[in-house]
Amino acid sequence: VLCEAVISHFEAKRLAGRKVVLTAGPTFEAIDPVRGITNSSSGKMGYALARACAHAGAEVVLVSGPVALPVPYGVTRVSVQSALAMREAVAAAIDDADVFIGVAAVADYRPATPAEHKIKKSGEAMSIALTPNPDILAEVAARPNPPFCVGFAAESRDLDTYAEGKRRNKRLPMVVGNLVQDGLGQDDNQVVIYDEAGRHPVPRAAKDNLARSIVKHLADLLAAR
Amino acid sequence: VLCEAVISHFEAKRLAGRKVVLTAGPTFEAIDPVRGITNSSSGKMGYALARACAHAGAEVVLVSGPVALPVPYGVTRVSVQSALAMREAVAAAIDDADVFIGVAAVADYRPATPAEHKIKKSGEAMSIALTPNPDILAEVAARPNPPFCVGFAAESRDLDTYAEGKRRNKRLPMVVGNLVQDGLGQDDNQVVIYDEAGRHPVPRAAKDNLARSIVKHLADLLAAR
Repeated sequence: VLCEAVISHFEAKRLAGRKVVLTAGPTFEAIDPVRGITNSSSGKMGYALARACAHAGAEVVLVSGPVALPVPYGVTRVSVQSALAMREAVAAAIDDADVFIGVAAVADYRPATPAEHKIKKSGEAMSIALTPNPDILAEVAARPNPPFCVGFAAESRDLDTYAEGKRRNKRLPMVVGNLVQDGLGQDDNQVVIYDEAGRHPVPRAAKDNLARSIVKHLADLLAAR
Repeated sequence: VLCEAVISHFEAKRLAGRKVVLTAGPTFEAIDPVRGITNSSSGKMGYALARACAHAGAEVVLVSGPVALPVPYGVTRVSVQSALAMREAVAAAIDDADVFIGVAAVADYRPATPAEHKIKKSGEAMSIALTPNPDILAEVAARPNPPFCVGFAAESRDLDTYAEGKRRNKRLPMVVGNLVQDGLGQDDNQVVIYDEAGRHPVPRAAKDNLARSIVKHLADLLAAR
């Protein structure tokens, strides 16, 4: 913590006076009291970004799904499990936010009717009915006077098409895209930033360094608004 | 590690010369390259038992699903994701094992046909077809000359019925039962041991202490064989 405080002191305070709300990690959508649908997001990229935003002087609220990571120095963490709980926690923090960064790998679907008690094994094939979850990032971006919204796109192919498509569909000023095979769960990653001006590849680096590059890009766009 | 080595030195070596294979943690059953079905097992009870068995002098192989826990001192860990991979890792270790302890919360079902690429969100309701997973514990217990098999039953109600039922159905000499609301993800728990002689409640304790009580019970039954 002392070390982080010292590093923080020497970083340019590009986000001083700004409030940043981020989501990170997976969500866990209950099937019954013990089982659920989730994804293999480690939360590392979101936590690295929260840390970089705090270093840049921002007030940071990190709404986090279930991960095994400590709270970054200078960051307020709100821990949630499901997409619905994440949406509520974001709504509670977003009113006076200048920036929203949706890094969480929010489950697109949840079981339509979670069972109250543990489902007993029958040995037969079965299926789970799923219902779509709200799109938290799209909802924040569609608010009147929205904060500066940054999306993340983790794809297994056709990154440019999907990531730039996401940016246009949700009317986001900035999307960070990566291929899941390049970074999921790892300590480093390579990403491409998409904005109004085009695509900006960021070379492979540790997630903390990537986060600093992304925050610098974001701070430049925010300052130019 | 030094501390654990010292503690280990003073523990009674009730399992000296025995090989113990355990499973621990959840399994993760892929829906597509990023999503999957899992459960909220932390792996803490299984890891505590692996540690207690090593302290008791056993050679210990721990087949572990995805958890955020370090390898216990003196334990060989094999890391897996799915139930099918867990079954293979158990098969590779079980031939000369004296004891098998199935603590893992193995997913009862897996998606019938995992998608090769990330499933795109359609906004429509959908469903996932599931197919039953193998019952690793039942398979080990059904081997010719099986090792001494210990099952775990985590239930949300009717513990005696389900746990003793599991013991009889799978013909296990010993089952450890607990209510999920009592211990899941926590550092302590309360359990009931079921064996041929009846039910033996073990009062609430830290998982490391519970593990020692369970291993003592197991070593007594094993010695009386």
